[in-house]
Amino acid sequence: MTLSELAAAIGAELVGDGSLLIDSANTLEAARAGQVSFLSNPKYSKQVETTKASAVVVSPHFKMPGVNLLRHKNPYYAFMQAVVKLHGYRKHPHSGIHPRATVDSSATIGEGSVLYPGVYVGPRARVGRDCILYPNVVIYDDCVLGDRVIIHANTSIGQDGYGFATHKGADGEVAHHKIPQIGNVVIEDDVEIAANATIDRAALGSTIIGEGSKLGDLITIGHNARVGAHCLLVAQVGIAGSTILGHHVTMGGQVGVAGHLKIGDGATVAAGTGIMQDVDEKAIMIGTPAMPASQARRVYAIFTQLPELLARVKKLETGSAGSDEPEPPAEA
Amino acid sequence: MTLSELAAAIGAELVGDGSLLIDSANTLEAARAGQVSFLSNPKYSKQVETTKASAVVVSPHFKMPGVNLLRHKNPYYAFMQAVVKLHGYRKHPHSGIHPRATVDSSATIGEGSVLYPGVYVGPRARVGRDCILYPNVVIYDDCVLGDRVIIHANTSIGQDGYGFATHKGADGEVAHHKIPQIGNVVIEDDVEIAANATIDRAALGSTIIGEGSKLGDLITIGHNARVGAHCLLVAQVGIAGSTILGHHVTMGGQVGVAGHLKIGDGATVAAGTGIMQDVDEKAIMIGTPAMPASQARRVYAIFTQLPELLARVKKLETGSAGSDEPEPPAEA
Amino acid sequence: MTLSELAAAIGAELVGDGSLLIDSANTLEAARAGQVSFLSNPKYSKQVETTKASAVVVSPHFKMPGVNLLRHKNPYYAFMQAVVKLHGYRKHPHSGIHPRATVDSSATIGEGSVLYPGVYVGPRARVGRDCILYPNVVIYDDCVLGDRVIIHANTSIGQDGYGFATHKGADGEVAHHKIPQIGNVVIEDDVEIAANATIDRAALGSTIIGEGSKLGDLITIGHNARVGAHCLLVAQVGIAGSTILGHHVTMGGQVGVAGHLKIGDGATVAAGTGIMQDVDEKAIMIGTPAMPASQARRVYAIFTQLPELLARVKKLETGSAGSDEPEPPAEA
Repeated sequence: MTLSELAAAIGAELVGDGSLLIDSANTLEAARAGQVSFLSNPKYSKQVETTKASAVVVSPHFKMPGVNLLRHKNPYYAFMQAVVKLHGYRKHPHSGIHPRATVDSSATIGEGSVLYPGVYVGPRARVGRDCILYPNVVIYDDCVLGDRVIIHANTSIGQDGYGFATHKGADGEVAHHKIPQIGNVVIEDDVEIAANATIDRAALGSTIIGEGSKLGDLITIGHNARVGAHCLLVAQVGIAGSTILGHHVTMGGQVGVAGHLKIGDGATVAAGTGIMQDVDEKAIMIGTPAMPASQARRVYAIFTQLPELLARVKKLETGSAGSDEPEPPAEA
Repeated sequence: MTLSELAAAIGAELVGDGSLLIDSANTLEAARAGQVSFLSNPKYSKQVETTKASAVVVSPHFKMPGVNLLRHKNPYYAFMQAVVKLHGYRKHPHSGIHPRATVDSSATIGEGSVLYPGVYVGPRARVGRDCILYPNVVIYDDCVLGDRVIIHANTSIGQDGYGFATHKGADGEVAHHKIPQIGNVVIEDDVEIAANATIDRAALGSTIIGEGSKLGDLITIGHNARVGAHCLLVAQVGIAGSTILGHHVTMGGQVGVAGHLKIGDGATVAAGTGIMQDVDEKAIMIGTPAMPASQARRVYAIFTQLPELLARVKKLETGSAGSDEPEPPAEA
Repeated sequence: MTLSELAAAIGAELVGDGSLLIDSANTLEAARAGQVSFLSNPKYSKQVETTKASAVVVSPHFKMPGVNLLRHKNPYYAFMQAVVKLHGYRKHPHSGIHPRATVDSSATIGEGSVLYPGVYVGPRARVGRDCILYPNVVIYDDCVLGDRVIIHANTSIGQDGYGFATHKGADGEVAHHKIPQIGNVVIEDDVEIAANATIDRAALGSTIIGEGSKLGDLITIGHNARVGAHCLLVAQVGIAGSTILGHHVTMGGQVGVAGHLKIGDGATVAAGTGIMQDVDEKAIMIGTPAMPASQARRVYAIFTQLPELLARVKKLETGSAGSDEPEPPAEA
């Protein structure tokens, strides 16, 4: 593919020699002649000078004499399109249901879906069209997947939610009694779920993963939770039961969210944050307990300087405040 | 089933029309005529007014004219019994060992146990009666499961514990040498373990999960740890090696517990807490590092208001303390 | 095996009766006659007095009259060797590729490697010699494992990294578009990975796990991350994409590391720590946000005593500072 053809294919403005041949994509650092790369973070601009790539996808006003540029208002998206053109998505080693996948006779699998070895699809479950279930994915009974859903290896969908009624028996022993989990999981179109994740079925009704949402490795979604459309939940996030996420919510790795909460549309939650209260639309939350970003930044700046704050209080206690002694170290 | 019959079956006091037919259970919000629902959290009392459920399980003194009530001193437990009566537990699509489960010839599987496709049971392992091992559960060699144990999809039981001896070799290279993990895992009766969890085998002796305990998704239990009877450990909890939990311990999601600790009977640990020291019986622990709940609440209230505390110290330093200036914002 | 033979085999100095027969290893507490035990933590010295073990591996200058001692400068390593001599490593119930493992015809499996039932090895993947892949391990296409790699049950290697380009479409809808993940995972020699872990393939190039590193249960390593040689990463650690760990890095359980960071050689990170910045060589980091250990200890000591700090500030505000009133409680 020539650079001109690639520019046209991804809707980029070409600055440079359109006749060059491009065969693949790579990072700025590792690229060689014949490869296209990209710059989305200005922090790495220096690498554009030294890259051996034949062309670099950049933002509209970026300049670098001597380097062939493909300008696009969303360089990362344009590069993604280039990777798709040049490499495409995975070619599967088989089509349809692999003989070592186990599909219950009452389940339905849509046309074009690929089920790898070790996949299990239980009674009455429905898998839409053009889905990919990688090895050892388990779909419990009655769960429903839309179209173009991708689920990576060893992920479990629809196991029983964590529902137990605690009761002191006639023998005086306090024990936990299993509540039948008679709901299911519904995964809407274009969802991708990474490896070894767990989505619990609802106690009653449905646990729902909204259209176009992307869930990372080792995520867990509790029973009756609802994740809105186009959410991004990075690895190891845990959402407790009955919590509702709006659409376009973003959560970094290892975020934990308590049960029965509402997280507003477009909210962003930093990695490692612990959410114990409802979150407003478009809020940016950081820390444990979760605070709005501006508050959290001030709180943590003082937190890491607590020894200095204590020293200042001690100085006040000994009556030296206002004296001409040297200043204590300033807080960040 | 009539409402009278249901009331009798779950040991509830009926207030209302016992002749109504009940066919299933649902939430207050989603229920329709012919369904039973429940109220265990008074916060949702309003929903009893508007529910379309034909009856609602409530606590003994609850009143709501015009609504059929099933009064029980433990409404959640009574509702659980109703769900069991009306819906029952999962009916499995096969009985016994599925031909696609792999059981070593030296392993034993008790009567009434159901092994789904992809299950692996290793040499000399023993599975008790009426157990359910969902797809792709792995039980390593020599592990022992009691009766009525339920293990959900993709959970691993008995893999080697994290045991390595670090040693500087003759070549000066510091490397980590695997210590054979010659113990096993013992899971007592009536334990339920959710999906994609990991229970490590003991280095020597046994890692033990006590009778009636319920473990959530993605939990990990380190080698030689012991979980007492009737514990509730929610998703993503991590218990390091050789730690001992008493009975009736409750831990919220994402709790981490360091190794070689003792957690007393009946202790409760809030979600996200990091435990680095022994915990007393019946203690309620919150935060990182874990603190008794009353202390933690005061600490975190001040923590989130640290900028105000700093402002007060600054004011003292500039000599304005005791002046008639406006008060700084009060801490929570 | 006599105690003399065992001493010679593990390179220990024998103090006591070399003619005793030793048949197995155990903890100080559980050992009986005929067993060898060890003491590596002086905290448990008392148990050497009361153990029923026939011999105890101890450090060079340890004394305990009446107990047979095996002195070694690294008792834990010496004991490991004893366990290997007396018990050996797991004997597998089959050799080679189990008929229920699925290996793509274009993949290669080295001599001496054992693949358990349910293992999947994708197109063009290469597994070295003497590897062990426990049940339901999944190796995606093009991934490469060195020699003597051990991977425990239900772990996923090489699934697509979390790579999506967010773009507002012509219809005004903001959606996330999958970026083909065309790289792979390279796992070097002598790596061990525990159960239900996830190592994402690189977007471009390779995600690398360095020689001799040991990864715990439920760990996740993001795309294009590199873990150096001889690292120890305990259970539930999460390393985000493109982060680079040096060699001999140690991380406790549930540590989270943000993307695009560098963690220096020999750094140690305490359990539960959240790393958001580069870490120096040999640094010891604790807390969220991560701080050098000495700072973190002071910060957390004040943190847990914040109510006392607030009380001291209040006292200053009311003008009683410097008075002869009783002292407020001291901070830890």
